[in-house]
Amino acid sequence: MNLKEIGEFGFIERFKPLFNELVPGNITGIGDDCSVIPVNDTEDWVITTDLLVEGVHFLQDVITPWQLGYKSLAVNLSDIAAMGAVPVGSFLSVAVPKDVSVEYLDEFMKGYHNLSQKYNTPLLGGDTTKSLKHLAINVCVIGKCAKSRARMRNMAQTNDVICVTGCLGDSAGGLQVLLNQLKATPEYDYLKEKHHQPEPRLNEGKYLSTMPGVHAMMDISDGIASDLLHILKASGKGAEIETDKLPVSQELKSVANQQKWNFEEFAISGGEDYELLCTVAPEDLTKICAGFGACFNKPLIPIGKINDGQSSIQWIKNGEQVILEKTGFNHFS
Amino acid sequence: MNLKEIGEFGFIERFKPLFNELVPGNITGIGDDCSVIPVNDTEDWVITTDLLVEGVHFLQDVITPWQLGYKSLAVNLSDIAAMGAVPVGSFLSVAVPKDVSVEYLDEFMKGYHNLSQKYNTPLLGGDTTKSLKHLAINVCVIGKCAKSRARMRNMAQTNDVICVTGCLGDSAGGLQVLLNQLKATPEYDYLKEKHHQPEPRLNEGKYLSTMPGVHAMMDISDGIASDLLHILKASGKGAEIETDKLPVSQELKSVANQQKWNFEEFAISGGEDYELLCTVAPEDLTKICAGFGACFNKPLIPIGKINDGQSSIQWIKNGEQVILEKTGFNHFS
Repeated sequence: MNLKEIGEFGFIERFKPLFNELVPGNITGIGDDCSVIPVNDTEDWVITTDLLVEGVHFLQDVITPWQLGYKSLAVNLSDIAAMGAVPVGSFLSVAVPKDVSVEYLDEFMKGYHNLSQKYNTPLLGGDTTKSLKHLAINVCVIGKCAKSRARMRNMAQTNDVICVTGCLGDSAGGLQVLLNQLKATPEYDYLKEKHHQPEPRLNEGKYLSTMPGVHAMMDISDGIASDLLHILKASGKGAEIETDKLPVSQELKSVANQQKWNFEEFAISGGEDYELLCTVAPEDLTKICAGFGACFNKPLIPIGKINDGQSSIQWIKNGEQVILEKTGFNHFS
Repeated sequence: MNLKEIGEFGFIERFKPLFNELVPGNITGIGDDCSVIPVNDTEDWVITTDLLVEGVHFLQDVITPWQLGYKSLAVNLSDIAAMGAVPVGSFLSVAVPKDVSVEYLDEFMKGYHNLSQKYNTPLLGGDTTKSLKHLAINVCVIGKCAKSRARMRNMAQTNDVICVTGCLGDSAGGLQVLLNQLKATPEYDYLKEKHHQPEPRLNEGKYLSTMPGVHAMMDISDGIASDLLHILKASGKGAEIETDKLPVSQELKSVANQQKWNFEEFAISGGEDYELLCTVAPEDLTKICAGFGACFNKPLIPIGKINDGQSSIQWIKNGEQVILEKTGFNHFS
């Protein structure tokens, strides 16, 4: 049997029961953005890891080494943000083929350092080794948050309002600009930068985690059509999303218009935006949105709500239910 | 410039200064078997990560998937043992090419689980992704130890006796058996198993860490000629090793005799034995060796001593100083 047939999550389900008995009751293991481990009376630590492989997650001739270093850390910091935690430190493993120069690696480390410095995340260890053909990069990040305050995927409640922290679809638009080698314009560059240099929403995640009315939280890495399902499955809920409310940048709308792209599809299933998605108690929504706006000078955007459905999403357009044909990115497709 | 020219440690020296300012004073970052981070009033956490790449660290047609799963975790648990710590949990990332079946991965996970269960190490998270060509495996393990009791490489003191926890060179012998496709005999099988299924010395490391007379400690992954130098550099010391005292198994001696191999070279620079090396205060040696023997039913073996030299090893054979021609494994050679 090929992994493509069962996918990443099918594979995890095969071995997870084998390991369940080893996990102490006070530790949250496989199944959320991060694992959560209590370390003292006031804090829990959260841990995440991501492996990026050349030719699958990036193309060496498209992303600069600086951007690759930056993005390798960013995608992990985004998982820390999704828990409402702050980073403690990172661990970086790289497998390097012969044709990659030391100068390339220097630039890679500068990009990695830029984001490390911005979010005060020391590089605490790692591994450097040879690779026969492709560059491979694994990053593991440890973060911390107030005890029992990590925001998990199973915390969504019926009638919660589903919100996102920023525009969706820009990264997918940027990827199309790159793959189609569209020549440079400010709009194209904007989308490419969104794809190559996503901002981990650590400050936003930290703010949201201080609000008791914010329930479930996660980062949008595979597109909401796919990611929101994780929250729904973990929480045993359903959701409805109003596609007209999905925040889409003017840049993406404009480029999509020129190129005849369906920007709504990018926003729903494009992935790699690394905005946060959270579910908010309806009675707290006004206060939380006002506080968020005051803090970050941008809105927290309601896009739908949680219902008692069976782990499925209803898509609503102009008040009518519509069918979504494409779903999120499958890593083995 | 190619990475081969400067090696793993040359590369680390290029970027380490950039990150130093981000590391808080109470955290030990890059440069030991593990990073050490205080988490509460009584405990420190230690963290290590290792990346294994097909064609560099293993060959798919030589190692079974079960053994590969086992070894991927073992080499990381060995770093935890080297600090005198016990494991808290592991994180596993795998990049899987199309031709690797789900059944192969099932066996891999069974081997990984076998060792996880033996040393009570829950698998707490990870990442599964596609790879274009080669299998790549990254493991990150967190451990814990009593506060300020982690054994670091910079703790060796002049006149300390250098000891090892078991035979050296078997793994290198096993690798030669595999590469030369020698047909199965009990001795060959013994060496191959040492290469494919190294035992992380967690119990020994935990015992040694309770003894105040045990100073520096590390695991032997690249061969003592290379690994001991790390302790010497970190501690600002020299060492002399009596090559006649290096523990070598009867199996290796016998196979080396048949095959005209230099078993002493394997013991000195073969690598991948994953025994522990520690430096012991001379006044405590008898007591510590006796306690070790009683606990583990095998000896702790003195092989030399620390002196005031300049980060170099003097090799002594039959009372005479000899020159060592081959040095430890260089990852980029």
